[in-house]
Amino acid sequence: MAKDTQFVGQIADIEKDFPQWYTDVVLKTKMVDYGPVKGTMVIRPYAYAIWENIQREMDKRFKAEGVENAYFPLLIPMSFFTKEAEHVEGFAPEVAVVTVGGGETLAEPLVIRPTSETIIGSMYSKWVQSYRDLPLKINQWCNVMRWEKTTRPFLRTSEFLWQEGHTAHATAQEAEEMTMRMLAVYKEFAENCLAIPVITGKKTEKEKFAGAVATYGMEAMMHDGKSLQAGTSHYLGQNFANAFNIKFLDADGVQKAAYTTSWGTSTRMIGGIIMTHGDERGLVLPPVVAPVQCVIVPIAAHKAGVSENCRALAERLQKAGVRVKVDDSDNSPGWKFNEWEMKGVPVRLELGPRDIESGKMVCVRRDTHEKAEYALENAETVVTDLLSAVQKNMLESARARRDKRIVYADGMAGILSAVEGGNFVKAGWCGKRECEDKIKEQTAATARVYAEGERAERCAVCGGKAEHMVVFARAY
Amino acid sequence: MAKDTQFVGQIADIEKDFPQWYTDVVLKTKMVDYGPVKGTMVIRPYAYAIWENIQREMDKRFKAEGVENAYFPLLIPMSFFTKEAEHVEGFAPEVAVVTVGGGETLAEPLVIRPTSETIIGSMYSKWVQSYRDLPLKINQWCNVMRWEKTTRPFLRTSEFLWQEGHTAHATAQEAEEMTMRMLAVYKEFAENCLAIPVITGKKTEKEKFAGAVATYGMEAMMHDGKSLQAGTSHYLGQNFANAFNIKFLDADGVQKAAYTTSWGTSTRMIGGIIMTHGDERGLVLPPVVAPVQCVIVPIAAHKAGVSENCRALAERLQKAGVRVKVDDSDNSPGWKFNEWEMKGVPVRLELGPRDIESGKMVCVRRDTHEKAEYALENAETVVTDLLSAVQKNMLESARARRDKRIVYADGMAGILSAVEGGNFVKAGWCGKRECEDKIKEQTAATARVYAEGERAERCAVCGGKAEHMVVFARAY
Repeated sequence: MAKDTQFVGQIADIEKDFPQWYTDVVLKTKMVDYGPVKGTMVIRPYAYAIWENIQREMDKRFKAEGVENAYFPLLIPMSFFTKEAEHVEGFAPEVAVVTVGGGETLAEPLVIRPTSETIIGSMYSKWVQSYRDLPLKINQWCNVMRWEKTTRPFLRTSEFLWQEGHTAHATAQEAEEMTMRMLAVYKEFAENCLAIPVITGKKTEKEKFAGAVATYGMEAMMHDGKSLQAGTSHYLGQNFANAFNIKFLDADGVQKAAYTTSWGTSTRMIGGIIMTHGDERGLVLPPVVAPVQCVIVPIAAHKAGVSENCRALAERLQKAGVRVKVDDSDNSPGWKFNEWEMKGVPVRLELGPRDIESGKMVCVRRDTHEKAEYALENAETVVTDLLSAVQKNMLESARARRDKRIVYADGMAGILSAVEGGNFVKAGWCGKRECEDKIKEQTAATARVYAEGERAERCAVCGGKAEHMVVFARAY
Repeated sequence: MAKDTQFVGQIADIEKDFPQWYTDVVLKTKMVDYGPVKGTMVIRPYAYAIWENIQREMDKRFKAEGVENAYFPLLIPMSFFTKEAEHVEGFAPEVAVVTVGGGETLAEPLVIRPTSETIIGSMYSKWVQSYRDLPLKINQWCNVMRWEKTTRPFLRTSEFLWQEGHTAHATAQEAEEMTMRMLAVYKEFAENCLAIPVITGKKTEKEKFAGAVATYGMEAMMHDGKSLQAGTSHYLGQNFANAFNIKFLDADGVQKAAYTTSWGTSTRMIGGIIMTHGDERGLVLPPVVAPVQCVIVPIAAHKAGVSENCRALAERLQKAGVRVKVDDSDNSPGWKFNEWEMKGVPVRLELGPRDIESGKMVCVRRDTHEKAEYALENAETVVTDLLSAVQKNMLESARARRDKRIVYADGMAGILSAVEGGNFVKAGWCGKRECEDKIKEQTAATARVYAEGERAERCAVCGGKAEHMVVFARAY
């Protein structure tokens, strides 16, 4: 690798060509690479470390909800899919099918899981016999596969990593509460860990999960004003319990079908982080999930004591729980500044002979570009405080940017001009599929979620009585 | 679930029918269940929690070796396998093949990874250009698939979870050192975390990984004297680098092929824990990886203050870093003792009204069945000390049991009677495949590893000059 190659300038202009900016950023920061099979990606260490941090934070929250992890088989008999009518219709067109195993053609083709309601349902029917076996709350971290025609790293790939939670309950009320509870867990996680403000709400029939009674989504606004569905929570009613015979003897001596839920989030969230916070210099990573929270760049590294002092500082910060790295490569400080800015590291420290002499260090925030000097002796407090400040500011500025771009419309022209201007649009909807379809045809926007707690008078399409205020947006 | 069902007695006698004991234990402790597709298993929460503890401990060690995690695609083009001649021969017969995706027949069939040397090799060839890009050390935690005819939970299933490390180096020496280093990491982990003593050493040509220059394994003795290969580390030389074009420009200006390694361990290790430590009452779990390290059983739970004191004690222990659980179910104390013994929980505390009054608690060790009273006020120290003692004793007793069952033989009759008696056998071997084959045919034992540092005079089969002292055993 040639020294001092400037990355900046190699990234497309975020305002002029956002799709190219995205591709440049994910490749040049070594987050991903394209796999040999079309539509697949390799998640490289820099992005995988973000995923590990996401997993750690989410997993803690799931366990606090009494959810346990388990692992179910990758391959699902094709016949399982046909047991729930809507489910097979939704997923059959996009599955990958194993037809040969151990050199022999299989009697029944096996599907690589696109999601696991069916196979988990078949196991729950064995495990759930009595009301004492309920609630049953299991999550799995795994890979899933959905054959996609058009793919983009993190956002849409044939294989991706995710978590899928599956619970079974004795009553509809309890299952509905669980559905909403996990939606709330997702929202708290997205906002406090990823610094992504989200709108949560119920989805329309058209947009709901294949086989669900109701789907709730969380939607985040990306830099270009498009929406990213960053997680969903489904209330499945008794649909899968009936299809897979999840029955239990209740306390009243009556045999009943259980009520189930499922909920999932995926590596897509990494795309959400990139597209929510990124700027003209590249990534801006929220400290809670950043692989490197603080990079130390030695100034005049050849001078006596500089390297030693940088390493000593790194050790102190590491002990204080900071994910820290000293960049002691041969490149110039300027090159390093650019590289670590592109990689989105929240805090940069610069330490040279004069700083050491005066007991100071220079700190630069990635989010605001603010630069200030602090006493070296307070490094632990300074850096942890800065990381908290960055995390807080990232959420607040993302929220401010988004809130300015949520507009109301009462007709098709208003919806069109709003989404073309990169906004989310709130508009009344009568509840009819044809009006929903018309909006998509004419504006390329889809119904993201119902705007909770808001009411509209008239449907923006047909002028009929509105049943819901809906958030419309173009979406990834 | 009926109350007070006694599990003990439902498990087959470990001495009379070990295979049935194993099946009983893994099913009745709810570690696994059989999946709907033949040869697949569901890893239930109780076993998955062990896997999470294994992952945490191993991952820490990998990162200390400078290894980073990443994720590579599940599906590998069939043509990749044919690039390394030995590799395709070894794996082709046992792969699962995807032939249909998104409703269309694929132009090239895709193989579900049985291991990832090929696809990772293809990516490394893009990433490695200069000696500055080396060493490259990446690990992935994932699922793999090998179509097996005869399967047993954890030990041999068509799909299993594992980690596979893949490194590339500039020199043969560095790659060989890495191979041995990871073998040492595995051994330290197996002994200190799983309390499983292992024999590590080089494998014969017949037993080595398909495509490797040399394979090193770690072998553990199970309760019945059979060996379990619990992990392997491969030196791949330039085989995969040549097949996948992993070339770099060295500091001397010459283009060279890299030297690579790979190393893996899997959920098989859970089977190893069960079969190394289990006894007539069920599981005995090493504290470092036990999902529940300490169970508190209330005595006369209906009496005033008992439940409260049990919960308060649990809170104190949890704060001290102990994975603790209060069994406040409706079952009798006797039923609970049996259940938690079957589940292998290392330490049991019993707390009743009289204990509370006198400021005492009763502690029972799962490994030695020792029962003693301690002061309640010292609970944190008592329990953490007991857990350390159990961990240490489990390794020591497993080692003592094993060492008594390693015998020497200098002829086929000796080998046969030794393995029939449930021993590992050390015997000389001339290095010829036909002698190795003969031992397998006549005794069902295979060459596990070379006995490091030991020499033999004569081959136990042909009487020719021995090249190696070899550990032979029947194996899982």
